[in-house]
Amino acid sequence: MDGYRFTETIPLRLRDIDQMNHVNNAVYATFLEQARSAYFRDVVNNPLNSVGMVIADLNVEFERAVTLEAGEVVVGARVPELGRSSIPMEYAIHADGERAATGSTTMVHVDREAGTAKPLPDEWRETITDFESLEP
Amino acid sequence: MDGYRFTETIPLRLRDIDQMNHVNNAVYATFLEQARSAYFRDVVNNPLNSVGMVIADLNVEFERAVTLEAGEVVVGARVPELGRSSIPMEYAIHADGERAATGSTTMVHVDREAGTAKPLPDEWRETITDFESLEP
Amino acid sequence: MDGYRFTETIPLRLRDIDQMNHVNNAVYATFLEQARSAYFRDVVNNPLNSVGMVIADLNVEFERAVTLEAGEVVVGARVPELGRSSIPMEYAIHADGERAATGSTTMVHVDREAGTAKPLPDEWRETITDFESLEP
Amino acid sequence: MDGYRFTETIPLRLRDIDQMNHVNNAVYATFLEQARSAYFRDVVNNPLNSVGMVIADLNVEFERAVTLEAGEVVVGARVPELGRSSIPMEYAIHADGERAATGSTTMVHVDREAGTAKPLPDEWRETITDFESLEP
Repeated sequence: MDGYRFTETIPLRLRDIDQMNHVNNAVYATFLEQARSAYFRDVVNNPLNSVGMVIADLNVEFERAVTLEAGEVVVGARVPELGRSSIPMEYAIHADGERAATGSTTMVHVDREAGTAKPLPDEWRETITDFESLEP
Repeated sequence: MDGYRFTETIPLRLRDIDQMNHVNNAVYATFLEQARSAYFRDVVNNPLNSVGMVIADLNVEFERAVTLEAGEVVVGARVPELGRSSIPMEYAIHADGERAATGSTTMVHVDREAGTAKPLPDEWRETITDFESLEP
Repeated sequence: MDGYRFTETIPLRLRDIDQMNHVNNAVYATFLEQARSAYFRDVVNNPLNSVGMVIADLNVEFERAVTLEAGEVVVGARVPELGRSSIPMEYAIHADGERAATGSTTMVHVDREAGTAKPLPDEWRETITDFESLEP
Repeated sequence: MDGYRFTETIPLRLRDIDQMNHVNNAVYATFLEQARSAYFRDVVNNPLNSVGMVIADLNVEFERAVTLEAGEVVVGARVPELGRSSIPMEYAIHADGERAATGSTTMVHVDREAGTAKPLPDEWRETITDFESLEP
């Protein structure tokens, strides 16, 4: 996918569809979460649910409706630039070979006990920067 | 709720919670949809699913996690200013009396057959403007 | 509700509806879970998610479709008879004043470390038996 | 999968997990729906959502919890014997190569306008019987 070195393919489920016969808007957030989680597992080598990241914001721009007939979506995910404690991510969701939506999130690395942001581990910083520096 | 004349109370469900023990981020999109739908039903007097509105964008800023113990969320929804064919909405999600998130969406009125935007009916424009012009 | 002393009212959400314009079959399982959880909170005075109960089986008989227009469902829940380690429950789901489905589940009290069933606490046994012995 | 000629593999999503760190019980109903839908698409050559089938009952027996680490479930689906208007189905859900649950549903072919059951088309009857008569 143009501009995305990392992609995750997600088969659609009937349950994703709402009464407008389209994938429901909230399911796009689930698609981003799924891609984000796969990125952490495969690129950062850490499951997202174990590393103290919380989501700070979520944005989706819907370009075209996705129907069940598409069968699956392909979600591109990338980290444009790392913050001190935060990992911004950008996404594109494709269905039937066409872009259906774009999105972004910001994840923040937190110290759960103190409830404050804490710097990203250097190891993640290196791994992510290396991965993203290569051509998609 | 400060700044919101329209609010919708939504009881939480166990199914809203994910393995971080918090309401899952995608469920916030469902909360906004629920408030938006109630706004259309109660203010515009038209069920959202029958009026040819599609969602163009969705944004959520997460401020604090919501746990099942909160029991319910209260979602404020308002229309800051109408577009020609679009209805921007702003939202605040409160739990336990504290703001947990804010959000916004843009809905666009479309001609389903032509696939193009069409002007909002004058009747909606008047009803929404009247409703929002009153003090919350 | 006839035969049920305990009922829980659950507002419908747009997200509950699938492309057949009905509440999706999997959502009935969520309705039962919601009623079961309320029963534990209100009758047993223990939140279901903290007491080491696991679900062993789930059965639903669908009698009539539920549409969004119903607004809410009312779920009756009762414990017909306690097992040594298990709590069987029966349910009825009503919408628009008519029965839409019935269901049943079996919950088992487990020792999470040993992975084996363990007897229900006497206190629960008494509380539940007392509650169910009264007329609905 | 033993005894099942038809299987469908379904990748897990983070959203499938609840606060017990397991796949939520309602998601099993979604797994069965997904397998059933795939069976109709691939064996009967008709998408389930277009053929006037409604679900009459749903049963799941939970044998072991499924965690996100399993990555995917494989769902076996079969039609043990056709009714006049109904299609009973049996399922097995496997994760990590072990059986995690079994289930069953009954689908009924309905005349939507009359609201009554109507006989299964001979063509389906033949196709399904032929498919199931072969060794898994």
